Amino acid sequence: MQSRFYTLTAYPNGLPDRSLFALETQTLPDLAEGEVRIRNHWLSVDPYMRGRMSGLRTYVEPFGIGKPMEGGAIGEVIESNDSRLKVGDNVSHMGGWRDIAQLPAEGLTPLPENDVPEQAYLGVLGMPGMTAWTGLNLIAECKPGDNVLVSAASGAVGSLAVQLAKAKGCHVVGIAGAAHKLAWLESLGVEPVSYQNRTAQELSDAIKLASPNGIDVYYENVGGICLEAALSQLNEGARIAVCGMIDSYNAEAPSPGPSNLSQLVIRKAKMQGFIVADHWSSYPYFLNEVTPQVAAGKLAYKETVKEGLESTPDAFLALFEGGNTGKMLVKL
Amino acid sequence: MQSRFYTLTAYPNGLPDRSLFALETQTLPDLAEGEVRIRNHWLSVDPYMRGRMSGLRTYVEPFGIGKPMEGGAIGEVIESNDSRLKVGDNVSHMGGWRDIAQLPAEGLTPLPENDVPEQAYLGVLGMPGMTAWTGLNLIAECKPGDNVLVSAASGAVGSLAVQLAKAKGCHVVGIAGAAHKLAWLESLGVEPVSYQNRTAQELSDAIKLASPNGIDVYYENVGGICLEAALSQLNEGARIAVCGMIDSYNAEAPSPGPSNLSQLVIRKAKMQGFIVADHWSSYPYFLNEVTPQVAAGKLAYKETVKEGLESTPDAFLALFEGGNTGKMLVKL
Repeated sequence: MQSRFYTLTAYPNGLPDRSLFALETQTLPDLAEGEVRIRNHWLSVDPYMRGRMSGLRTYVEPFGIGKPMEGGAIGEVIESNDSRLKVGDNVSHMGGWRDIAQLPAEGLTPLPENDVPEQAYLGVLGMPGMTAWTGLNLIAECKPGDNVLVSAASGAVGSLAVQLAKAKGCHVVGIAGAAHKLAWLESLGVEPVSYQNRTAQELSDAIKLASPNGIDVYYENVGGICLEAALSQLNEGARIAVCGMIDSYNAEAPSPGPSNLSQLVIRKAKMQGFIVADHWSSYPYFLNEVTPQVAAGKLAYKETVKEGLESTPDAFLALFEGGNTGKMLVKL
Repeated sequence: MQSRFYTLTAYPNGLPDRSLFALETQTLPDLAEGEVRIRNHWLSVDPYMRGRMSGLRTYVEPFGIGKPMEGGAIGEVIESNDSRLKVGDNVSHMGGWRDIAQLPAEGLTPLPENDVPEQAYLGVLGMPGMTAWTGLNLIAECKPGDNVLVSAASGAVGSLAVQLAKAKGCHVVGIAGAAHKLAWLESLGVEPVSYQNRTAQELSDAIKLASPNGIDVYYENVGGICLEAALSQLNEGARIAVCGMIDSYNAEAPSPGPSNLSQLVIRKAKMQGFIVADHWSSYPYFLNEVTPQVAAGKLAYKETVKEGLESTPDAFLALFEGGNTGKMLVKL
């Protein structure tokens, strides 16, 4: 059986070019003891993958040049050499960027039987959802009544962060760009603020209008002017959970940080980076809390779906151009 | 009786000019019930005072234009209308920038009877010492074996931070400028690193040489290239206690922050600002721990002493030019 998969041909500087992604074909070896073969239904593309294209070890290993790329995926077991999984089982795993994955059964996550669409386990109930929940609760220690600000608020992570904060009884402001994203946020009860064509000062003024009592929790996905604007509106004892800084991921040269970091002192504020993998032992708590809300339709989530394996690089690149509302997915 | 005191004539933009400080004289009113009159022996000048000259409310009220300035001071009670203090008592108080202070006895701190020189209660055993102890222990959660980096390491706060970290059994690197400061740090068992004539990258390389196992705790007094260099050397789970950012206090225009703040995510690091006043309830614990070490000569501290009330503005301004080793004081 053959597998088609993407490899990276070089480590990009700046925004990756479409030509850096090569689609290759391989005849899969026979299944070894403990291995399974999976036909992928859904592939995930996520901003963090840009970090794996730098060639540097960060918190995950870089992609190997010429090696199959990896990423979250959902698929169906089509052949099994392990007693824990049988043909027909749906699993969540890291063998993405390909159509057929052959992997050790160890480390795959069988999907629960329920009415939630399977691809939700790549988004609202998967890594992005868990990331939103972890940053909000475990890092920023968000509590009822807090004034919460979220950047990239209509993205896969941000859109869950704003809703989880709303559900806690917080006043929530979401930063986004396009009009339809702002409208969606407003429909969720979130005060929408656009960053487009604004300086950091103008964005800060807009945040103040939307959250006159300041900001207690800032869920940071972007960096750049969003961070500078947020720092100016912090309340005393504010907590910033730094999930990512997509603004800088494709920068060819170092871009300067905020000029007002001393607000951390003036406001006695905390700014803390985190990696969701370190908190994965809490994933069952997250699922217990959030799955019923998703199943009941109480948590809105959007998907931006590209069709076909060949669209995977474009789906990934669109993440850096605001091309997604909610979770960006590739459907095979 | 007359009191001579400094007032601020305007809120400066950038580095304050000597002419912004006016020496004035006032005939003191009769002592009210509960008031005492104090002849100051020592005045403190501290970087945080620059914040009170901005005209903006930060974590302390701004100095009033034309009003007596304030600051830490040590003096002797020369007249008392309060049963808690008698003539001859030495007290620590906030009526600095003047020779004779008249204040409510409430809120003054009598100095304990011991062999420690009284001015130590403006430095190693006062606000700067407590600031070092608080940042290191309560904010950065420093523990034995940590690799610790301190900026402005030969200053009033930094020089105690490095020694408290050494006493805990940490590997300690101190950033400073002048050769005699670096030599002093070395004599304390600290690895000295100069920031002078270095880019952030060069400073980062020098820190790596001095601390090959990375940085677990960064005690931040400076900002600027020190912060950028430190961020590049963080270990996973590093803690940054942000005491101050003197580099930016006199900036006339916003100066850009570090370009590598995303290291907070990659290293899962925490960066937290604090104000020592919020932790003053722990001052007795600090005194219990540190006073015996000072009395026994186990904690080295230096003083840079200017003579006479008229030298107070110059003493203050010298803080921003690296003019002090250890605590900057004015002796009356």
